[in-house]
Amino acid sequence: VENIMQDPQHHGGHGHHHHKHHHHPHHDPEPHDDQDKEYVGFATLPNQVHRKSVKKGFDFTLMVAGESGLGKSTLVNSLFLTDLYKDRKLLNAEERITQTVEITKHTVDIEEKGVKLKLTIVDTPGFGDAVNNTECWKSVADYIDQQFEQYFRDESGLNRKNIQDNRVHCCLYFISPFGHGLRPLDVEFMKALHEKVNIVPVLAKADTLTPGEVKKKKIKIREEIEQYGIKIYQFPDCDSDEDEDFKQQDHALKESIPFAVIGSNTVVEAKGKRVRGRLYPWGIVEVENPAHCDFVKLRNMLVRTHMQDLKDVTRETHYENYRAQCIQSMTRMVVKERNRNKLTRESGTDFPIPVVPGVAESETEKLIREKDEEVRHADHELEDCHLHSLKAPGCL
Amino acid sequence: VENIMQDPQHHGGHGHHHHKHHHHPHHDPEPHDDQDKEYVGFATLPNQVHRKSVKKGFDFTLMVAGESGLGKSTLVNSLFLTDLYKDRKLLNAEERITQTVEITKHTVDIEEKGVKLKLTIVDTPGFGDAVNNTECWKSVADYIDQQFEQYFRDESGLNRKNIQDNRVHCCLYFISPFGHGLRPLDVEFMKALHEKVNIVPVLAKADTLTPGEVKKKKIKIREEIEQYGIKIYQFPDCDSDEDEDFKQQDHALKESIPFAVIGSNTVVEAKGKRVRGRLYPWGIVEVENPAHCDFVKLRNMLVRTHMQDLKDVTRETHYENYRAQCIQSMTRMVVKERNRNKLTRESGTDFPIPVVPGVAESETEKLIREKDEEVRHADHELEDCHLHSLKAPGCL
Repeated sequence: VENIMQDPQHHGGHGHHHHKHHHHPHHDPEPHDDQDKEYVGFATLPNQVHRKSVKKGFDFTLMVAGESGLGKSTLVNSLFLTDLYKDRKLLNAEERITQTVEITKHTVDIEEKGVKLKLTIVDTPGFGDAVNNTECWKSVADYIDQQFEQYFRDESGLNRKNIQDNRVHCCLYFISPFGHGLRPLDVEFMKALHEKVNIVPVLAKADTLTPGEVKKKKIKIREEIEQYGIKIYQFPDCDSDEDEDFKQQDHALKESIPFAVIGSNTVVEAKGKRVRGRLYPWGIVEVENPAHCDFVKLRNMLVRTHMQDLKDVTRETHYENYRAQCIQSMTRMVVKERNRNKLTRESGTDFPIPVVPGVAESETEKLIREKDEEVRHADHELEDCHLHSLKAPGCL
Repeated sequence: VENIMQDPQHHGGHGHHHHKHHHHPHHDPEPHDDQDKEYVGFATLPNQVHRKSVKKGFDFTLMVAGESGLGKSTLVNSLFLTDLYKDRKLLNAEERITQTVEITKHTVDIEEKGVKLKLTIVDTPGFGDAVNNTECWKSVADYIDQQFEQYFRDESGLNRKNIQDNRVHCCLYFISPFGHGLRPLDVEFMKALHEKVNIVPVLAKADTLTPGEVKKKKIKIREEIEQYGIKIYQFPDCDSDEDEDFKQQDHALKESIPFAVIGSNTVVEAKGKRVRGRLYPWGIVEVENPAHCDFVKLRNMLVRTHMQDLKDVTRETHYENYRAQCIQSMTRMVVKERNRNKLTRESGTDFPIPVVPGVAESETEKLIREKDEEVRHADHELEDCHLHSLKAPGCL
């Protein structure tokens, strides 16, 4: 007989103490208090995690979407300082009109200060090029779902050691600088994708717009995003304990949407310094000059501050939504089968179908709006099955 | 029509470059080489992970096992500088003889330098106390399995946001200093548990042994661990790029098994300094003096260097083994049911049972030694079912 006693958790008081300096445990004059003032060492846990993450390496999958000619490839190359599209073959007008949306994937292994990143760029060339673009977002949505499906299979399988995670962590959506705000296709595309992927809208080719035009266009686009109920990637709220500088940066970031960008893979000379830029007769556009565009802001967000969050939101929100829907429809199917089989079989014996243990628990209702009353009723029956099967002596 | 082109990965040359200093991108005189020398910023990824881990907080579950009186509770309190056993009630001899192994769980929330740790100690008081200790390890093994089972249910369920992870990350196994090496019960216990949990053996109450005795006993115990095929927790191999100091520490750690420990919750005065220790007429035993015992080594390993690895091994090895066995037996059960149903039903229609997608794939063979040829054959049939069900239009 086993008896698990859960101790009331000792909150506050006793265990909570901060130390500013490592290796400098304070000694208290009071002997009974002494143990409160020493250093155990679990404050190294984040460092252990840090170390392990470096050892393991990182991966990131970025999708770029939008009509061709908006500088998607150039921007990606500028962002990651690598030539991802060396072998790209540009299509002529005739090919572009008839082609369907073709999704291509490029992977590079890059390393910086000992940190390894496997970067995958998913490109949707020709998007919006055709005369009729009805449902052109469909193949993109399907692609994202397929990666989720593959991951779902892999993480449900027996050997989960070396799962290749191809889930798309972010979609840079390029908006034309020539539109009066969003075009219908932009709205349709983003609405079709926003529950599946973190969308970060960018205002492309911003060197065609004056600062005043950029400002106005950004406000217009933000308003339309709001108005059409498009859920773009939300930057996580800043912690209250962050310093002022950080908070201000965070605010500026939120105000920059959509990031006005200019890409360039050429280096030009500006004021005696060699910079990435575009040389016009009227002056030099410097890609990394914050007064010229939001390139640096976008790169900081995408790479230096929010890359991990983009991955976490993908994993915890978009993938979990996909998985829940998938399990729900599988469960419904099994229930229907069971009911059909009950009619054809002699006895209605409840043999255990251990679909996915724990499915159809109390949270189900909250997560998925169950429309079919009859199916919902049957789910409970199925739940009993799972419990039964897990408790069966067969399972260890 | 969609076409996924996988680019051959660009290894070496291009993307691989190290920078020693942040914010100091080098500028190359050659324009076409310039982009290789700049800083993208994904080197901040480990910091992003670090930051997130601090925000989220940590948890760790430590089990202590061994006969009572070996100082398990005192050692735990010494390790974490907290009083986990304030309410403990000691049993008298009569109670101890008749009691069965009772598992208790204590949880404290502690914080250090802003790092939060939810520490759970799983205790097996009275272990080995009874006259007949046959299968006394059983309730401990069951406890560990139950935590795995609960986690398996939770991670297979729909709402995975707030899963409480109670899996046991480490078991400190206390060996009596009076035995001539391992006792049969020690061997039996460790062998019953070693596939389920990371076992770290400790030589308890080492203040009853001279340095020479400690050395001899450690060698004897290590030999016996080897001889009986006991798989204790293996420290991960040091990277070749670690510095010499680290490598030496790592070597010393491996040579310390089983850690000779002395616990104390009292503070005594030794050479004018207040230290944790035990005051004997012949001198003061200092718990944190490396010349006196391995307490500091154990704490460093358990808390400061290997805590995250203990969690990773639990998750990636012990839990995965449990899960694979569980799925395998569930699959077998379903196959048997299917075969039984085929006989009683008119037609052998293959209705889809989407057990766990991806189960029974090619890795199955490698992972689990499948003894029953007939069942193995049937597994493949089942696999077709999964694929079929996942491809069904019902699933998105």
